[in-house]
Amino acid sequence: MHPLDEALQMQQQDPGLYTAATHPGYANAVGPFGGITAAQLLQAALLHPQRLGEPISQTVHFAAPVNEGEFVINAQPVRTNRSTQHWLIQASQDGHMVAMATAVFAKRRDTWSGVDATFPHNLPDPQSVAPMQWQKRPEFTNRYDLRYFDGVIPHELSGQERPHGQSSLWVRDEPPRPLDFAALASICDVFFPRIMIRRQRWVMIGTITLTSYFHADSALLTQVGSDYVLGVARAQVYRDGYFDQSAEVWSAKGDLLATTHQMVYFKD
Amino acid sequence: MHPLDEALQMQQQDPGLYTAATHPGYANAVGPFGGITAAQLLQAALLHPQRLGEPISQTVHFAAPVNEGEFVINAQPVRTNRSTQHWLIQASQDGHMVAMATAVFAKRRDTWSGVDATFPHNLPDPQSVAPMQWQKRPEFTNRYDLRYFDGVIPHELSGQERPHGQSSLWVRDEPPRPLDFAALASICDVFFPRIMIRRQRWVMIGTITLTSYFHADSALLTQVGSDYVLGVARAQVYRDGYFDQSAEVWSAKGDLLATTHQMVYFKD
Repeated sequence: MHPLDEALQMQQQDPGLYTAATHPGYANAVGPFGGITAAQLLQAALLHPQRLGEPISQTVHFAAPVNEGEFVINAQPVRTNRSTQHWLIQASQDGHMVAMATAVFAKRRDTWSGVDATFPHNLPDPQSVAPMQWQKRPEFTNRYDLRYFDGVIPHELSGQERPHGQSSLWVRDEPPRPLDFAALASICDVFFPRIMIRRQRWVMIGTITLTSYFHADSALLTQVGSDYVLGVARAQVYRDGYFDQSAEVWSAKGDLLATTHQMVYFKD
Repeated sequence: MHPLDEALQMQQQDPGLYTAATHPGYANAVGPFGGITAAQLLQAALLHPQRLGEPISQTVHFAAPVNEGEFVINAQPVRTNRSTQHWLIQASQDGHMVAMATAVFAKRRDTWSGVDATFPHNLPDPQSVAPMQWQKRPEFTNRYDLRYFDGVIPHELSGQERPHGQSSLWVRDEPPRPLDFAALASICDVFFPRIMIRRQRWVMIGTITLTSYFHADSALLTQVGSDYVLGVARAQVYRDGYFDQSAEVWSAKGDLLATTHQMVYFKD
């Protein structure tokens, strides 16, 4: 079984109430990788028998450290309309809330569609880009094939500040796995903290809250399959202990699959 | 009393539990302007005696139509750490949830700070830009002085599609009012729906979920006072009934006060 599918295993106690567990393969420096927590919280809603349609947004609050082991997820639809459904998803460990998410699920309809964002051109072939190397590699990064071709953290950090923290990379699950909403939710948090790209040095950070918008439906995700997807990530402002970062996740064919935003704590 | 301050009046039943009401001055085509709901939900947390620090993020779910009249807001801190506090804020009317928000409050510290986003140059003087005129003006727009100098909806809509939905404008409360977090939360939703800028025609829309990141602290907001702020708004993708839009809110002096993102339902 793929490590992501192992991490997404959960035991239903009641509809929407699940026992899940951290997965050692997705460990970060402290606690689990935020993306895997996002995927697990979304999965709980995806498994709910009253789910309407497919996810179009998710906001996750990383409220407290998640200790290794089991935790409980309670995912409940709090309002179901004709075509949209709003969710509150809470995770607790030993009776204390450790994470909270909200989500919107929706039934999409065929409409006029268009794109304002620009798909980058002159992209290198993923196979021509070296996988990322770094000094301190948290375990979860081994679950991704990360091929930065712009704005990479070099193996040796110079401390010479760059003018901005933008990066571009090809990424897919490692080993390859067909893309679905849980995998996409996780990839939305896979981008290296922008402050380290800009500052070119190690900075203590922690994502506080993450919002992802899913523009793909499951048919489009199926088309992507286990291909690399393109990530383009940037920060906007770093100020008094917090910075925001945003990213786009594109298919190799130029479909914008997700846009994602987060606020990150830093100590620098 | 300023209409915004009238809208922010609420009666405390218990700590975090308030009776608020819609304000006719902030009515939208159907129900209240989403920005005023965001401001009221944030205000409930701001008033809570256990509040820690100042808001750094807010996510609002517009779950159901809010009818004219009273509604109940229940704002509770669900996790308080040393320097961050996570909030769940729920609004109900006649026993049914109509809106839900989460928020992060934090105590900021002096750190290295920087900005990656680019403050636009060659900005026109606000007084040189004509206030927006439009065919169907919802009441709440009269509570803002909106001076679009790029990507405006013209008085007569041509239906001739533009290549993108980006806009720039100067905006402030009308009448002018010193900026605070509630006012800023509301301004984060003041940007015209991007699909109408791109399509140059009326489209039925509704914001489903809105996330705003507050980069300013109250000292910086006090410096801004009742000056115009600059808004730059854009969409990324419109697909099968939903589009996302993002905006930056800058002070006239070039401080990035807030970044904001939303998913919007549309019928086109």
